[in-house]
Amino acid sequence: VRRLPAKQVHDRAALDALLDAAFVVHVAVLDDDGRPYVVPLAAARDGDRLLVHGSTASRVCTYLSTGAPTCATATIVDGVVVARSQFESSLHYRSVMIFGSFEVLDGPAKQAALAKLAQCLLPGLSQARTPSARESAATAMLAMPIREWSLKVSAGPPDDVASDVDLPCWAGVVPLRHTFGEPIDAPDLASGIEVPAEIATWPSGRA
Amino acid sequence: VRRLPAKQVHDRAALDALLDAAFVVHVAVLDDDGRPYVVPLAAARDGDRLLVHGSTASRVCTYLSTGAPTCATATIVDGVVVARSQFESSLHYRSVMIFGSFEVLDGPAKQAALAKLAQCLLPGLSQARTPSARESAATAMLAMPIREWSLKVSAGPPDDVASDVDLPCWAGVVPLRHTFGEPIDAPDLASGIEVPAEIATWPSGRA
Repeated sequence: VRRLPAKQVHDRAALDALLDAAFVVHVAVLDDDGRPYVVPLAAARDGDRLLVHGSTASRVCTYLSTGAPTCATATIVDGVVVARSQFESSLHYRSVMIFGSFEVLDGPAKQAALAKLAQCLLPGLSQARTPSARESAATAMLAMPIREWSLKVSAGPPDDVASDVDLPCWAGVVPLRHTFGEPIDAPDLASGIEVPAEIATWPSGRA
Repeated sequence: VRRLPAKQVHDRAALDALLDAAFVVHVAVLDDDGRPYVVPLAAARDGDRLLVHGSTASRVCTYLSTGAPTCATATIVDGVVVARSQFESSLHYRSVMIFGSFEVLDGPAKQAALAKLAQCLLPGLSQARTPSARESAATAMLAMPIREWSLKVSAGPPDDVASDVDLPCWAGVVPLRHTFGEPIDAPDLASGIEVPAEIATWPSGRA
């Protein structure tokens, strides 16, 4: 199986679609010895910036709050490419690396970003109680401009070398589907409260 | 929406299940200026080690081949937790950070690892042509021991504070399902070649 072959894509709309579909980004942080770590963070796109949040007590937020250079990478696997050779077999995927540094948001900017993040993770749901002062204080809200980025997309049929095309094996793509299943009521849900209609319209393809 | 709340899990079987389900890991690399980047790589578990591969010409493989300390993180989002408060709303997810460094595989160990990787990404398929000497030379195969790791799992119903439970809004979990769709024949597939039965038994839940 080949290393992930992909095309560099310069289409900002494709980048936005990926970020809007991805629930998490993987962010790079360095420990005190300069060793790199990769930490998943729930993320949302707000126009031209990437929002992440975390506990103010967490190491990752402490690190990112310094404005240190980092990279946030979002990847969604869209399918498996079955070629006639192992070498040309690969994955359909989209991945973006966003380079830069995060800035800590405070005050009204923080509240607005928290609301935006909630809307991205729970689209259409507005009934949930907004954060209390204590909850807000426990949450670090960070934003990084979407300015320097590298988007790679692997799509299309297998690209077998001519001498392999006649091999007697199947070739094609097996799509990977990301869909929402039946909502599961909380055990302590009061009777008579139905699943909101908004959830039924959550777009598939999120991962 | 709260920062990803999760329990630390020390169950090696849960780690193995996550790695066996994840198609990619996100790996940390440093550039020449010591800035960290996060790169997605197709990955597979082979017993007690993590296998990744890439183009020998790629920066990420060049970096990892030096044996520099790194971290490979695999994350699968399993659902959305809808709580009565935005703060307690979150994601169901599993994520493992594996710490260590990669070792370059060569010779028969490399061939065996390439076969293992192909079996993990294309389970049951054995018809594809194995790599030629040139293809093998173009591929760097790297292994990292699964020795030092941190697995976090977020599962279960929303954990609302008592004073929120009576709020008149729905609470629960919306599962995210990762399933394979109908295979799509390659445009140049010869007539009479059917989709192999093995593909029909590919486990769902991979992402």
